[in-house]
Amino acid sequence: MKNTFGNAITVTLFGESHGPAIGAVIDGIAPGIEIDKEYIDNRMNQRRAYGKISTPRHEADEVEFLSGVFNGYTTGTPLCLLIRNMNTKSKDYDNLSRVARPSHADLTAYYKYNGFEDFRGGGHFSGRITAALVAAGAIAMKALEEKQIYIGTHIKNCHGVYDREFDDYFNDINMLSEAQFPVLDEECSEKIKLEMEKAAADGDSVGGVLETAVIGIPKGVGEPWFDTVESMLSHGIFSVPAVKGIEFGAGFDFSSMRGSAANDAFRYEGDRIVTKTNNNGGINGGITNGMPIVFRSAIKPTPSIFKEQETVDFKKKEDTILNLKGRHDPAIIHRARAVIDAVTALVIADLLTVKFGTDYLAK
Amino acid sequence: MKNTFGNAITVTLFGESHGPAIGAVIDGIAPGIEIDKEYIDNRMNQRRAYGKISTPRHEADEVEFLSGVFNGYTTGTPLCLLIRNMNTKSKDYDNLSRVARPSHADLTAYYKYNGFEDFRGGGHFSGRITAALVAAGAIAMKALEEKQIYIGTHIKNCHGVYDREFDDYFNDINMLSEAQFPVLDEECSEKIKLEMEKAAADGDSVGGVLETAVIGIPKGVGEPWFDTVESMLSHGIFSVPAVKGIEFGAGFDFSSMRGSAANDAFRYEGDRIVTKTNNNGGINGGITNGMPIVFRSAIKPTPSIFKEQETVDFKKKEDTILNLKGRHDPAIIHRARAVIDAVTALVIADLLTVKFGTDYLAK
Amino acid sequence: MKNTFGNAITVTLFGESHGPAIGAVIDGIAPGIEIDKEYIDNRMNQRRAYGKISTPRHEADEVEFLSGVFNGYTTGTPLCLLIRNMNTKSKDYDNLSRVARPSHADLTAYYKYNGFEDFRGGGHFSGRITAALVAAGAIAMKALEEKQIYIGTHIKNCHGVYDREFDDYFNDINMLSEAQFPVLDEECSEKIKLEMEKAAADGDSVGGVLETAVIGIPKGVGEPWFDTVESMLSHGIFSVPAVKGIEFGAGFDFSSMRGSAANDAFRYEGDRIVTKTNNNGGINGGITNGMPIVFRSAIKPTPSIFKEQETVDFKKKEDTILNLKGRHDPAIIHRARAVIDAVTALVIADLLTVKFGTDYLAK
Amino acid sequence: MKNTFGNAITVTLFGESHGPAIGAVIDGIAPGIEIDKEYIDNRMNQRRAYGKISTPRHEADEVEFLSGVFNGYTTGTPLCLLIRNMNTKSKDYDNLSRVARPSHADLTAYYKYNGFEDFRGGGHFSGRITAALVAAGAIAMKALEEKQIYIGTHIKNCHGVYDREFDDYFNDINMLSEAQFPVLDEECSEKIKLEMEKAAADGDSVGGVLETAVIGIPKGVGEPWFDTVESMLSHGIFSVPAVKGIEFGAGFDFSSMRGSAANDAFRYEGDRIVTKTNNNGGINGGITNGMPIVFRSAIKPTPSIFKEQETVDFKKKEDTILNLKGRHDPAIIHRARAVIDAVTALVIADLLTVKFGTDYLAK
Repeated sequence: MKNTFGNAITVTLFGESHGPAIGAVIDGIAPGIEIDKEYIDNRMNQRRAYGKISTPRHEADEVEFLSGVFNGYTTGTPLCLLIRNMNTKSKDYDNLSRVARPSHADLTAYYKYNGFEDFRGGGHFSGRITAALVAAGAIAMKALEEKQIYIGTHIKNCHGVYDREFDDYFNDINMLSEAQFPVLDEECSEKIKLEMEKAAADGDSVGGVLETAVIGIPKGVGEPWFDTVESMLSHGIFSVPAVKGIEFGAGFDFSSMRGSAANDAFRYEGDRIVTKTNNNGGINGGITNGMPIVFRSAIKPTPSIFKEQETVDFKKKEDTILNLKGRHDPAIIHRARAVIDAVTALVIADLLTVKFGTDYLAK
Repeated sequence: MKNTFGNAITVTLFGESHGPAIGAVIDGIAPGIEIDKEYIDNRMNQRRAYGKISTPRHEADEVEFLSGVFNGYTTGTPLCLLIRNMNTKSKDYDNLSRVARPSHADLTAYYKYNGFEDFRGGGHFSGRITAALVAAGAIAMKALEEKQIYIGTHIKNCHGVYDREFDDYFNDINMLSEAQFPVLDEECSEKIKLEMEKAAADGDSVGGVLETAVIGIPKGVGEPWFDTVESMLSHGIFSVPAVKGIEFGAGFDFSSMRGSAANDAFRYEGDRIVTKTNNNGGINGGITNGMPIVFRSAIKPTPSIFKEQETVDFKKKEDTILNLKGRHDPAIIHRARAVIDAVTALVIADLLTVKFGTDYLAK
Repeated sequence: MKNTFGNAITVTLFGESHGPAIGAVIDGIAPGIEIDKEYIDNRMNQRRAYGKISTPRHEADEVEFLSGVFNGYTTGTPLCLLIRNMNTKSKDYDNLSRVARPSHADLTAYYKYNGFEDFRGGGHFSGRITAALVAAGAIAMKALEEKQIYIGTHIKNCHGVYDREFDDYFNDINMLSEAQFPVLDEECSEKIKLEMEKAAADGDSVGGVLETAVIGIPKGVGEPWFDTVESMLSHGIFSVPAVKGIEFGAGFDFSSMRGSAANDAFRYEGDRIVTKTNNNGGINGGITNGMPIVFRSAIKPTPSIFKEQETVDFKKKEDTILNLKGRHDPAIIHRARAVIDAVTALVIADLLTVKFGTDYLAK
Repeated sequence: MKNTFGNAITVTLFGESHGPAIGAVIDGIAPGIEIDKEYIDNRMNQRRAYGKISTPRHEADEVEFLSGVFNGYTTGTPLCLLIRNMNTKSKDYDNLSRVARPSHADLTAYYKYNGFEDFRGGGHFSGRITAALVAAGAIAMKALEEKQIYIGTHIKNCHGVYDREFDDYFNDINMLSEAQFPVLDEECSEKIKLEMEKAAADGDSVGGVLETAVIGIPKGVGEPWFDTVESMLSHGIFSVPAVKGIEFGAGFDFSSMRGSAANDAFRYEGDRIVTKTNNNGGINGGITNGMPIVFRSAIKPTPSIFKEQETVDFKKKEDTILNLKGRHDPAIIHRARAVIDAVTALVIADLLTVKFGTDYLAK
């Protein structure tokens, strides 16, 4: 289904980095969800570039609602939101030359779209498109919060610096929802920023790992084959540029564990069944068990760096050297968390709507 | 879409561990693909239990083609394949008691299906269902090989023992296609089996990491949002029981790399553009770049162990102790590779059919 | 999505007329629906050939449940039902000759499947496949009846003979559910059978119009674009062989009406809003308004006739004459009603499950 | 899938009559299709109100391309087109009163969206939304014409006045593509307009039947179950407001025919197989046979009339009388043809892309 994702709630993304606008159409969202502009702006700000470690393309990123909203509430019809691109005056380009930026999609876009792609600034592959995803996700996230379902993401590690574990999920997520730089341990924050600045000083970049928790999700959600909670989340998350890995619960650490340590023992806590450990990240057999969903996403270093890079000019059909100019982020991981949060909210909202029907989120 | 997956080629899985049969319906597969029973049986054998490290449920696993095959070739209409369950005589069960096996889906199935699930042997969540997936995948895999697209999976590591890297992809994959125990380094094979046997001796189990390579796939395949190659593969792979993580190319190792080391430099090799490294695992921006697709799947230890486990009886609504009896695999990772291969083949076949049309695979 | 249809409840059909079996996989059906074999058999009988006006291929049509049923109830996992083909021993066929039966799919199947199609008896295009559809529909229909939603279809007209209008929907539908020959007016029944027998005597065939009513469906079901109730029903109904038209409410008669006569006036009947007329067939803007859904399906005359027909041999690439032998139905309209009922039940069940969630049908 | 339709090419519609804008996202359209603004404007004009028989809401209907177009060609990424609503300043409305216009969707929208719907001017159910559909369809239609596939629709009958039959499809379609009032017989044009004006003079409205032909479509396109050409076309066509019936080829006339008259005899015309008659409307078994696809759509009379109508106020919960004011079309059938053409083009483009791959339309 290409640029549309979801079963009961679908999101369709459109737009190019240097085109007139980017946007999203959310379909299947329940009627009666409040559109809280302040809430959305807060999420948009978390994604926005800022400070020494981010690029100075200052997009106002004003979210315009073209449809599906009436008197401040969702109508239940397709909600189209639009973000106009500013400052996109493209310089003239030479049609005889196209230099592929390594680890970007310049070359694969050319392969796929036969040269008709809007290549300016990465076009449809640009991280800029995620602004629309964040706005869309914020609507779902707000609706989930009304049902006491909360989502939060922090930088688990960045170039060797590790944040602390989630401790009290509710409070930690609450803290993250207000934090511009998403770490749980304040000290760690400075260390990570230092890594980013060091990379910047070298004309280089860093990646990292984001960890996401979802609490309050009802048990019994998801499908065994093929729409497991892991399948749906990973499908969405891997659409986010720079994501190259995802693991749930103990994830890759399972490979050095034995079953006796890996298994999550069940026990009653009052009427509720909980697990003593949560190595399965809240999911058994693809279905939620009521424990927090926990997963981690691997983010590769920003491909745009200022060091000289070997590459090809695929119009001239020759090897060449790339020296990027301008300003680029030495890291996007702190901004990517807003995108991961957004995708997570949309997927969870979709899974719940499949199970409980189209009015559920606003009930 | 629940139990159906794919865009142009869809697979629908059905069946329960102790029901009459399991099976799959493949729809959208090109007419004119040869059904090679020996080839399919070989893949089925790779998944089958064997030797000291596997359970003795000896299923004949005879694949019966109910539709979509005529004169030994696919017709292009839905292909239903069936595998009858043998020896499934269920013992009487006590309806007043249901003990949840930790890290299995017993409890979540109960949550989801309100007690109507066929819980015998894990029901629809049983690893047994993957036999149908392997048979379905074998048909796609054979068709891909006719187009010089090859897929192979080996145990990358198991409880601390690491196999060697892929070296010559073509030869390594070829070797794996014949190997019952899927490792590249023969010595490593013995060490891993030893880990499995040690776990077995302790009534315990081990997990590991599987690494998969796909070579020969055309460039320009996949979609930016939301059907990236990573999205589609992960969606399918996470449906396989016990998979809890997936990473492409350098994956989680990106977190300690800088962009200058992470980026894959392009260069011409004759007319063809290749990359010097393959940290992106053959995929840029969600689209194939013509390099091998490489990914790793984290497999958790088999949940069924013989050590005493704390859990709940959710019919009696009380905490209890579980002591499993019978025989269970101390590891399923060596068998799981056949399932990973199958899912990979189906996803790749689907992506190619989307791009090149419904006759492509048999042309 | 080809051979799969539906959003929340999907049906996948497979099988060929002369292959080992035909069947269906229903996915997304709620757990806890009773499987009433007598009920299913009754619906199967309505579709089965009988008497002077139908062919003597006596299929036992035993429905076998391979999955998704446990202790007599649906489990909520994919339900695969199978009907074995009997007496399908094919005579040898000459590979150098293929004569296209006019108005059948022999030639278009050849175009589409490049000669790999199983052409025996119409293969996957055979009306026989509808037996699986009827069995699948019966499960949905029974569940709908538990919710006081009833579906019934009668022959509205056949070769100039018209049945009476629906009068008391509930009683009429109840009567039809027990009738082997589906007309409301007993006298009309004889007249229609006479038309069929006259056609048979001439080696010819007749078609007709089926009229279907659905009562008790909740209001507010359906989607404006593009899954209107009309869109979903017509999508399903046009898959039934021989259907060439569908109209809702006044349908084509609207073309000679003025708005003042066509519009359905609303009024309160107690707390409930009803319409004085039902020219819109229970649907406004694609959404149910609580009045009976009424639609009519045009069924073309059975293409298999015993008169000499001009056609082509597309293997020999020459014009030829076809003289069919054996026995064929002079009409299938009375049997087709069971198929229309089944598709209607599946579509209505799907629409309700989308709106009210996956457990709705068994609640 | 609600507001998204299609398999390989999907269209997502959004917008409300009195909201800021309406629009469509087309996804999966091949890269390299020329965007011909004049061509699109011509199709938009065919849908636009004009003359004595249409309303004076003069929308400029400027189509704005927000994404998916670069240098005048489609890029292959999602194409979002937008049409701003002008003159939509809504008058204040009384929240205590809502009068349901008969045969409109006011009441069913309220049922479905729980009162959150944007009810002004019919909201998302307004015929105005079809402007976006026409713009989207024009892009597909132009691409089809490059492949010698042509689509044309005329008024087959309107309130008792019948247009002539299609004669020379190519020339007739060509003529229709330039005609503002879509009839084949010029005399008939005046008679139909007279019917419309007479209805207008009475404060009333008329409906009719539209007939569509598609020529040049390759043979072997479509799927037996469930995506027959008839299924896909009807699914799309029934989303168009006011459509209440569709029939292919002889359609409902089959009910009075015998098989010997109904069957279309095949014969060779050079190398090509044609049929002597085309009662099946170019489709056998749901698959194209290479003959023109012919279908008719029943359009109900415009529900907005100036005669007094009985209805309900569903906020006040009482019966009431409706006296519409302002100006409304006495007929929309001549404008609806542009919408039918558009949906047809999108469905045909989708079916071809499924079969021949994502680049087909621009090759």
